[in-house]
Amino acid sequence: MNFSSRLLENAVNEFSKLPGIGQKTALRLVLHLLNQQADDVNRFSESILKLKKEIQYCKICGNISDADTCSVCQAPKRDKSLICLVEDTRDVMAIENTNQYNGVYHVLGGLISPMDGIGPSQLNIGALVDRVREGTVQEVILALSATMEGDTTIFYIYKKLKDFPIKVSTIARGIAFGGEIEYADEITLARSIATRVPYGV
Amino acid sequence: MNFSSRLLENAVNEFSKLPGIGQKTALRLVLHLLNQQADDVNRFSESILKLKKEIQYCKICGNISDADTCSVCQAPKRDKSLICLVEDTRDVMAIENTNQYNGVYHVLGGLISPMDGIGPSQLNIGALVDRVREGTVQEVILALSATMEGDTTIFYIYKKLKDFPIKVSTIARGIAFGGEIEYADEITLARSIATRVPYGV
Repeated sequence: MNFSSRLLENAVNEFSKLPGIGQKTALRLVLHLLNQQADDVNRFSESILKLKKEIQYCKICGNISDADTCSVCQAPKRDKSLICLVEDTRDVMAIENTNQYNGVYHVLGGLISPMDGIGPSQLNIGALVDRVREGTVQEVILALSATMEGDTTIFYIYKKLKDFPIKVSTIARGIAFGGEIEYADEITLARSIATRVPYGV
Repeated sequence: MNFSSRLLENAVNEFSKLPGIGQKTALRLVLHLLNQQADDVNRFSESILKLKKEIQYCKICGNISDADTCSVCQAPKRDKSLICLVEDTRDVMAIENTNQYNGVYHVLGGLISPMDGIGPSQLNIGALVDRVREGTVQEVILALSATMEGDTTIFYIYKKLKDFPIKVSTIARGIAFGGEIEYADEITLARSIATRVPYGV
């Protein structure tokens, strides 16, 4: 692109480093911000700086938090014997939005992915094993994505946990509600038959 | 959405004010930035603050510029008698990318749009009339979008310019290169026949 200004080019380059944002979209975003009041631009810029500077990770579960312990781990009503293992804070938000889960979480911070150079040591796995060893936990639900990386991570963590006297489960895979059987992929369909549940449960 | 952190929520809200960015995308962008090094986040944040603080608008054509006169208006080789009127800096960039235009520009900074409360007085129209009155200009090309707002603006500016001894033209409307006639809308197709050009021109 043929920028009339170095400052503009620089801002567009920074924005186009964001995932899913190409140069044209970056330019649109930057010009939009440029048209806003100085106060609004400051507030935008501050919000991300402040987040980066002040954010904490819950010392128990590793989730993003404003304090050193997150609101879920602090809540007395949550069942501390049930841990749901998730990849990141987006998964926590998705599960919280269902309003159906009353246990606590453990946030891995990623998945094992040799292609991206992410090994088990970079993930929040040691802390999970420590929580289980401590004795309160009765079940760990492995709620990771059904991808190659997710399956590898599940397998690795299962090996770490299998000698403790706890239940280790994974979330059910199957046809989504509203999903049509004829369009389901073979693996999902086969698995949904193999793991069928009694009617009415 | 059910945020585990006020800081995160705040940053996501700021990002979702950007055009075309919903809450889910905003969350993805913010979490991506949170995973970057502090230096990178600072650089991102600085780039937009610095742009807002230091950017200038060319005192001749109104385009975004690092100095008080933009590089196009400064270039001795550009034909100062030919002005191409555009809506914003993106249009300047698009036309510059063609490498076919040797005149200068005039950037309006928007289109007349009563629905959005934008009247002629908020646009860079007075400066255009002053440039024309000054005497060097021989032709103004109205290169505005073929929308309701674009047409209104073209009509308004044409009235302002029609008493000066200059040519006022608009860019050609027609079937794009690679465009198929059967899929063209009726107005474009009718107009492309009415304004047909001799073969070989």
